[in-house]
Amino acid sequence: MTELDPAPPAVILNEPQLAENIGAVARAMANFGLSDLRLVRPRDGWPQDRAWASASGADWPLNDARVFPTLEDAIADLQLVLATTARPRELRLPVVTPREAASQLHAAASAGQKVGLLYGGERAGLETRDIALCQGVITIPVDPRFRSLNLAQAVVLSAYEWHAAAAHRPRDTFEKNREDPADHAALQGLYGQLEAELQAAGFFHPPEKTPSMINNLRAILARAGLSDQEVRTLRGVVTALSKGRGKVLEKLAAKRRAEGN
Amino acid sequence: MTELDPAPPAVILNEPQLAENIGAVARAMANFGLSDLRLVRPRDGWPQDRAWASASGADWPLNDARVFPTLEDAIADLQLVLATTARPRELRLPVVTPREAASQLHAAASAGQKVGLLYGGERAGLETRDIALCQGVITIPVDPRFRSLNLAQAVVLSAYEWHAAAAHRPRDTFEKNREDPADHAALQGLYGQLEAELQAAGFFHPPEKTPSMINNLRAILARAGLSDQEVRTLRGVVTALSKGRGKVLEKLAAKRRAEGN
Repeated sequence: MTELDPAPPAVILNEPQLAENIGAVARAMANFGLSDLRLVRPRDGWPQDRAWASASGADWPLNDARVFPTLEDAIADLQLVLATTARPRELRLPVVTPREAASQLHAAASAGQKVGLLYGGERAGLETRDIALCQGVITIPVDPRFRSLNLAQAVVLSAYEWHAAAAHRPRDTFEKNREDPADHAALQGLYGQLEAELQAAGFFHPPEKTPSMINNLRAILARAGLSDQEVRTLRGVVTALSKGRGKVLEKLAAKRRAEGN
Repeated sequence: MTELDPAPPAVILNEPQLAENIGAVARAMANFGLSDLRLVRPRDGWPQDRAWASASGADWPLNDARVFPTLEDAIADLQLVLATTARPRELRLPVVTPREAASQLHAAASAGQKVGLLYGGERAGLETRDIALCQGVITIPVDPRFRSLNLAQAVVLSAYEWHAAAAHRPRDTFEKNREDPADHAALQGLYGQLEAELQAAGFFHPPEKTPSMINNLRAILARAGLSDQEVRTLRGVVTALSKGRGKVLEKLAAKRRAEGN
């Protein structure tokens, strides 16, 4: 929470496949001062000896690594999460380079926020629904003739940029009147309520478009950088609109009946 | 060789040990447009199938790799060579970060010079005599608690910086993702609809707080930078929540009546 020593980002690996790569990620993290490693459904289970072997002594991120059943759980306590992905998406989330991401993460962490970097599995990468849980996308400016980046290479670039940004210690003009952003658990509560009400109201049609409609709505809300108070306000809005209008309609219906319509 | 397309640096590996690492270096090079790979006395000989296996398809730097008996031979045709090493030396050579190195290499290559990046073997690193053949030293600003960088990780950082310096900030993915923001007339239409529905639903209480509640809601929506399409989506959300739920309640009421409640 101090200006001098912002907490480095957590690294979240969603469905990583090879233990060797998890170890290489831990090594890359340690090189640049990161230590909070989170694994969502690692394919071969956890722990795996081969991870420690490939970490070349960077054991502490592995020793302290936490395993989560869902990505939502893994990022629940974080306030700013950026997803690294190569493919452009239909989602309207800001797309930044690792350097721009580092400056954004550093500003947020310097203001006391908990921040994270999300990576997909080696083969599958991230689904749109995973990215829709994040506040922004990091795209590494690779040569278009060979885009396939190794997982640990992708991690090391953002870790390096984080360390470079932290070393510079730019006096960031992070607006003082800005409130802390809500954490992802709060955001997910809002998403869940809104989507359930919209489902009940028959908003999602045709049904096969439901996932992309949900992702687009989440991207809008993620971009707004909601505070806890604002999440509560919007939950109140959803409640008022969905319940309150029912009351209004009932009154209207009663009035019509009274008028003999 | 032109201002527009300077030749990327050669990568020289001095006495590399593991073929897997040579393959990983080739992959890192390909990610950032480098292709000239030079090997000085690779421990296990050359070629090695395991290099191709770990290059994940980045075959061309391996196919074209040249093997040299001495470092002097390997860099004979180059005009600017920077050695990457972690340890400070007695040599009075300029020490730069990968970013500063990229800018220096790019300036030289843009002026038609042939440039290179030198790396030592996995275990031994570079001898002082090797470094003394170079024009400068690149030191990667790692966390002092864990300095041991994987060879391909060291290469990828300078390759990435080269590419960033060479490419003029490719913002194309961002631009493609970006839609024109909605104009204020569209926004105000959304505000008006939302606020009227909330008013009808009894959301604004106590009444004297209505203006500040409205301002807060508008600020949230303004921050999201909505496109026209997103404004239409959100108007649909408001309609669905306010009207759709009414339908649900009406159905529920009808059901209750039918059940004789």
